[in-house]
Amino acid sequence: MNITVEQIAIQAREASRALAAASGAQRAKALDAMAQKLLDVKDALMAANDADVAAAKNNGVPAPFLKRLAVTEKIFAYMVKRLREAAALPDPVGRVLFGRTMPTGLKVSKISVPLGVVAIIYEARPNVTTDAAAVALKSGNAVILRGGSESLGTNRVLVKAMQEAVTEAGLPATTVQFIDSPEHSVVNELLKQDKYIDVLIPRGGKSLISAVAQNTRIPVLKHYNGICHQYVAASADLKMALDVVVNSKTERVEVCNALETLLVDEAAARSFLPMLKTAMDEKGVELRGCKRVLEILPDIVPATEADWDEEYLAPILSVRVVNGLDEAIEHIARHGSGHTDGILTTSLAEAREFTARVDSASVLVNASTRLSGGGDYGMGAVVGISTDKLHARGPVGPEELCSYKWIAEGNGNLR
Amino acid sequence: MNITVEQIAIQAREASRALAAASGAQRAKALDAMAQKLLDVKDALMAANDADVAAAKNNGVPAPFLKRLAVTEKIFAYMVKRLREAAALPDPVGRVLFGRTMPTGLKVSKISVPLGVVAIIYEARPNVTTDAAAVALKSGNAVILRGGSESLGTNRVLVKAMQEAVTEAGLPATTVQFIDSPEHSVVNELLKQDKYIDVLIPRGGKSLISAVAQNTRIPVLKHYNGICHQYVAASADLKMALDVVVNSKTERVEVCNALETLLVDEAAARSFLPMLKTAMDEKGVELRGCKRVLEILPDIVPATEADWDEEYLAPILSVRVVNGLDEAIEHIARHGSGHTDGILTTSLAEAREFTARVDSASVLVNASTRLSGGGDYGMGAVVGISTDKLHARGPVGPEELCSYKWIAEGNGNLR
Repeated sequence: MNITVEQIAIQAREASRALAAASGAQRAKALDAMAQKLLDVKDALMAANDADVAAAKNNGVPAPFLKRLAVTEKIFAYMVKRLREAAALPDPVGRVLFGRTMPTGLKVSKISVPLGVVAIIYEARPNVTTDAAAVALKSGNAVILRGGSESLGTNRVLVKAMQEAVTEAGLPATTVQFIDSPEHSVVNELLKQDKYIDVLIPRGGKSLISAVAQNTRIPVLKHYNGICHQYVAASADLKMALDVVVNSKTERVEVCNALETLLVDEAAARSFLPMLKTAMDEKGVELRGCKRVLEILPDIVPATEADWDEEYLAPILSVRVVNGLDEAIEHIARHGSGHTDGILTTSLAEAREFTARVDSASVLVNASTRLSGGGDYGMGAVVGISTDKLHARGPVGPEELCSYKWIAEGNGNLR
Repeated sequence: MNITVEQIAIQAREASRALAAASGAQRAKALDAMAQKLLDVKDALMAANDADVAAAKNNGVPAPFLKRLAVTEKIFAYMVKRLREAAALPDPVGRVLFGRTMPTGLKVSKISVPLGVVAIIYEARPNVTTDAAAVALKSGNAVILRGGSESLGTNRVLVKAMQEAVTEAGLPATTVQFIDSPEHSVVNELLKQDKYIDVLIPRGGKSLISAVAQNTRIPVLKHYNGICHQYVAASADLKMALDVVVNSKTERVEVCNALETLLVDEAAARSFLPMLKTAMDEKGVELRGCKRVLEILPDIVPATEADWDEEYLAPILSVRVVNGLDEAIEHIARHGSGHTDGILTTSLAEAREFTARVDSASVLVNASTRLSGGGDYGMGAVVGISTDKLHARGPVGPEELCSYKWIAEGNGNLR
C-alpha cells in the first residue's frame, strides 16, 4: 500500500464534506452508475474472483469459506440489483424529523444528515463490498472498506469500478475507499482514526466485534448474533405454529435470526411436542429438552442449563415447557440476546402483552424469526442487524446511517 | 451505604421492566406526584440544603460552587415547574416511527420504547437531580443518580420524596435511585455495570466526561462543551449582528453555548469591528484578533494559533477576518467542536449554504448561540446537549432517551 490508513481516513473525511453538499439525485446517479460499471467490468471481476478463490484453495481455506468468497452469476446479479434498488429508495438525507416555530419566532427544525465517514470491517463475502458502499453512499457517507485478505483481488476490481462511477457522477473518487493490504496491522491503524471516522461497523463473529469495540474510541455499531426464541402459547394454532417453528429453525441454521430455543406452553405441550419431534426428525434437527419436555419426548437429549444460553448456529434446538406467558417472557429476558423473539398465539391480549414486554430489536407475532431483517421489513440493502439499543436497533439501512442537525432560524433573536 | 452499586443497578433493571409495562398516564401521574411531594417536603429540603451549604463552606469550597449547590426559592420553584412540565409533555414512548404492510402481508412497525436504565453522573446542582429524574421517567427509564458528594443531604430528601411519589403512582420505588455515598470508588463500580445499565450520561467538565467514556463499556452520551462561532457575512444587518454577537458572548460566559470565536467577513470588517470593540469594552470582554483585525483595531491583544481552539468560558472573544463564506466554513470545520455555530446574513443563498455545510449539532441563522438548547427548542427539561453524532445530537430530552423496537405481525408468514 503506498498510502497510509490515516491518509485514507483524511481523504474520506474530505470526501464526506463534498457528499454533504451533494444532492440526493446526484447520489442516486452515482449508485446507478456503480451498477452499470459493475456490468462493464464483469469479465475482469470474475477473473479476479476466480484467482482469489484459487489462491484461497491453495492455502487450504475450508470449503464453506470458499463458498462465501465466490462471486457466482446469482451473487453478481444480486450485487447489481442491490445497487439499483438503493438508487431508487427515497433519500434518507434532508428529512425534516421535527419542526416548530417557537412563540419567540425562532423557527426550529431537526434535519437528517449523513453521519460522515463510515468504516466497515468484514470477512470474505465480496457482496458486502457493494452492499455496504450502496448503503453508505445512499445516506451521503464516505465509506472505508476493509474486507477479508482473501478477497483483495476481487475487491480491487469492485472498488475501482465504483470509484469510476462516483467520479462520473461528479463526486470524489475517495467517496468509496478500501484498504488494499492483507496485513492485520491496518485494522489496528483503522481503529485509531477517531478524528476522522464517525462510526465503525464490524461484521463477523462475536470475537471480531468484541475485539473492535474494546480497542477503539470510534463509536461501534455492534451486530452480535442472536439467541432467538419462539413461544408457542396455549391458544396457538398448532399447525401454523409448527410451520413457523420449522421455518424459523431450518430455513437456514447458521444465521443470526435462526431459532435457537423453543418455549412451549404447558397446555399445548402434549399436543405440540410430538408433532415437533416428527417434523424436526425429518429435517435432521436434534432436540434438547427440559425435564417436562422429556416426560413427553423421553428419547431426546436432556438440555443442560448451558443450553439456554447457547447460540447453536447448527441443526440443534433447545425446547422448554413453560407455565404461561409470564414464564416465557421471563425466560427470554434472562437468556435471550435481544435480537429476535416471537410468539405464536391466536389471543390478541397475549400478542399485545408479549410485544410490549419483550425487550428485543424485533418482536414477532405468528411469523418466522427468519423474517427479521432489512429485506423483509422493506428497507432494501442493509449493513447488518444491530443488537445495540442506542442509535440503530435491528436492521441498519440508509436511514440508520444518518445523524441529524438542529437548524434554528431567527430574526435577531436573543436570549 | 448498606447496598452495593451492583444491587442498585440490578434493582434499576428490574424497575425498568415494570416501567416498560406502565402507561404514559401512569408515568405522568408519577411526575405530578413528584412535584407535589417536593412542595410537601420543602421545609426539610431547605434545611438539608442549608446544612450541605454550611458544611461545604466549612470545607473551604469556593463561592461559585456554593452558589450552584444552594437551592434558592427561585431554583425550588423551577424544580417543581420542570416536573409539572414533564408530566404535561406528549408521551415519547409508543410513538409509531414507521409502519408498513409488506406485500407478503407482514405488518411491520417501528415503535419507540424506553432505553431501560439510565445513569447520570453530575456535580453540585441539586436541580439536576429532579430534572434528570423527570426526563428519565417521562421516557419510561429507570434512573440511577450520582450527584456531587457535597449535595448528599439535599439529594437524600429529594430522592426520598420522588420515591414516595412513584410508589403512590403504582411504580417501583427503585424507578429513581441515587448512590448515597461520598466515596469516589462508587463511580468506578457504576462504570462496571454494563450488564444492567443502558446508557451513562456524565455532566461536568471535559476531564470527567473523558474519564467516564474511557473506563466503561456502557455507551456514554457525551456532552462536551462548545467552541461556538458566529460568522458575520458581508450582507449582514450590522446592527442586528452586533446585538446577536453581544448576546451570544455575554448573556452568560461560562456555558457551553456561549460564543468563543467571531468570524467577520472582510467586506464587513471595517464597519463592524469598531462597533464590536465599543460594545465589548462596555461589557468588559477582552478581544483577541488576527492580523487583519489588528489592522483595524490596533490596540487589542493579538490572537495566537491556540486561541482558535480555545474554549474560554470567560469574557474573552477571539476574532478573525475571513474572505467570504468558504473560509468561514473551513475555519469552523477545522477549529469548531460541532456544538453550535451561527451565521448573520441577509442573503438566503448564504443562509442555505451555511446551514447545509456546517456540520454542527445546532446551526443558527440570525440568532444568539445561547438559544441552542432544550428550552428554546421547545423540548422542556433536558439532561444535557450531546456533541455525539450517533443516537442523540444536540439537546437530550425525553425522546432522546428512547430506543425503538421493530414489531412484525404475520399470519403464519414464512421465509
